[in-house]
Amino acid sequence: MGIFTVTKKLLLLSTGGTIASVASSTGLTPGESGEELVNTLQALPYEITVEDLLALDSSNIQPEEWRLMAETVYARRNDYDGIVISHGTDTMAYTASMLTFMLQNINLPVVLTGSQVPMNVLLSDAPRNLTLAFAAAAACRPGIYLAFDGKVMRGCRAVKVRTTAFDAFESVNFPPVGVVTSDGLERHPRRAVPTEPCVLNTKLDLNVSLIKLFPGFDPQIMLAMAESGCHGFVIEGYGLGGMTFVRRNVAAVIGQLSRMDIPVIAASQCLYERSDLTKYEVGRQALLEGAISAHDMTSESAITKLMWALGQGMDHAQVKEFFATNVAGEVTLPEETEEN
Amino acid sequence: MGIFTVTKKLLLLSTGGTIASVASSTGLTPGESGEELVNTLQALPYEITVEDLLALDSSNIQPEEWRLMAETVYARRNDYDGIVISHGTDTMAYTASMLTFMLQNINLPVVLTGSQVPMNVLLSDAPRNLTLAFAAAAACRPGIYLAFDGKVMRGCRAVKVRTTAFDAFESVNFPPVGVVTSDGLERHPRRAVPTEPCVLNTKLDLNVSLIKLFPGFDPQIMLAMAESGCHGFVIEGYGLGGMTFVRRNVAAVIGQLSRMDIPVIAASQCLYERSDLTKYEVGRQALLEGAISAHDMTSESAITKLMWALGQGMDHAQVKEFFATNVAGEVTLPEETEEN
Repeated sequence: MGIFTVTKKLLLLSTGGTIASVASSTGLTPGESGEELVNTLQALPYEITVEDLLALDSSNIQPEEWRLMAETVYARRNDYDGIVISHGTDTMAYTASMLTFMLQNINLPVVLTGSQVPMNVLLSDAPRNLTLAFAAAAACRPGIYLAFDGKVMRGCRAVKVRTTAFDAFESVNFPPVGVVTSDGLERHPRRAVPTEPCVLNTKLDLNVSLIKLFPGFDPQIMLAMAESGCHGFVIEGYGLGGMTFVRRNVAAVIGQLSRMDIPVIAASQCLYERSDLTKYEVGRQALLEGAISAHDMTSESAITKLMWALGQGMDHAQVKEFFATNVAGEVTLPEETEEN
Repeated sequence: MGIFTVTKKLLLLSTGGTIASVASSTGLTPGESGEELVNTLQALPYEITVEDLLALDSSNIQPEEWRLMAETVYARRNDYDGIVISHGTDTMAYTASMLTFMLQNINLPVVLTGSQVPMNVLLSDAPRNLTLAFAAAAACRPGIYLAFDGKVMRGCRAVKVRTTAFDAFESVNFPPVGVVTSDGLERHPRRAVPTEPCVLNTKLDLNVSLIKLFPGFDPQIMLAMAESGCHGFVIEGYGLGGMTFVRRNVAAVIGQLSRMDIPVIAASQCLYERSDLTKYEVGRQALLEGAISAHDMTSESAITKLMWALGQGMDHAQVKEFFATNVAGEVTLPEETEEN
């Protein structure tokens, strides 16, 4: 066997983050190169190439950097068996979600990872997270993933839920596609390998807003934002996605926005489980006015999907149809749920 | 013993919510009275009085209703041993947080509860939640609580995290003060009984905004909102509370707002654990510009505390001091953490 084993070729794209951070007079800031990160690990059974792409705290990673990452992955996609992206944890779930939309039908595994403690600190989680990411990049099916604390998650389902603990990420409304056990990486692949060619599409509309409802919220602000150039909203409503309609009538404002061809995606501020606007009057009112359900998507996926959809020039009806489509595993539509 | 036992006098204030909902042509909507709710339960060892206050889905419960609830609790506080408020789950954590600030030093237990399934549906969680709330109102120390699915939580620490499951609420960054075991309600009281008299103060400033950051967020919108009359912000930053400062400079805008005497509270979009702006450069920049840390408060507590603080006419410096004060158990300050 061994004689025929081909060593997997993996690429590490480093972008900064805590994993690469060093102490400075202004607080922890990215300083280590990808080469330094890899050299800290015990020897890995892969042929690893390193490319330093960025050196940013991920609070500073924005659409411009998403584009750079997507373009780089796309350009290198046929030269490697898998790609690892080291990244700060703060916005890693947003990046993973957006890469899912920018790189549809990606033909190799792309695994984002990072750590809560810098690589150069004793007892850091960085060595095991980076090692896991390489193992996942060598073994998983094509797709965009986030690997952290012994779990490999679909990138568009990951959410950072803890600010400091090692188990910082959860795979929301969808089980992890891989977990580390004493047998190594136990994989649970859930999507077929794409047969269509990978498409790079980084066109985005950044004129979107993410609104988290709270009692007393004045929905008129949304009309003012629309007049100032906002082209679409994600609202984190209550519970199943309910919206106020007494006095401060959020549902009515959604109606006005919909008639202005401005889509409003109704998500939930509850971390877990799906939104369902059909169950309560407070959801139905919003639905009747044109609210588009985010179903069980994370807010990270919903806002990036909306940016991408509007970037393609979709109108309200097209955005509605697009949000009723499972593009890359980011949503479980009601009919899929019923089948289970 | 039994001959000297005094039956506890409890008051149920009903406000609507799923617990009292019935089917209608427009979806589930509140319909059952408090009397009907209590009559569905098995006989309880308390003397229970019922007062129907509202019949609203809690997506429609807003500051006006908070005031009504606070005034009613205040007016009845010396006539009962404990008060239960039945309430929709969607905004119950906001109501519980606000009542904490409106009714400081409350002299009896006030326990909010509700259910995921209406009382009149077989296998509903309503009977056991309402029974638990009465038991907590009879047994707990004075304070504002939220009782749900076998847990009694400090009201200002509760967050709704699941849209449909029975364990809808979690006590965030603070353990429950009571849990149901086979021995009944096992209590873990954590605050001394207040010795100061209860103060009713319902003055609020509703001109506040809750911003959830996402990559690409344009902070100029915050200046526009301030010019339109917004008096204070809670920002859910990334991770420990980090804010973008490259290109779209959120930290700089916080500086401008602070100089306009508009406080900006820095919370985290991570559900669990504390924000700490001192650790990373992306937090320190915001801190230097005047951001006020929410420490380990929930967003529900942070936005209601800000409304209340501004309602008292506090300026930026006073709001800062107020957010560095543990008013009613809503925050664990860094020095308290170090003691543990």
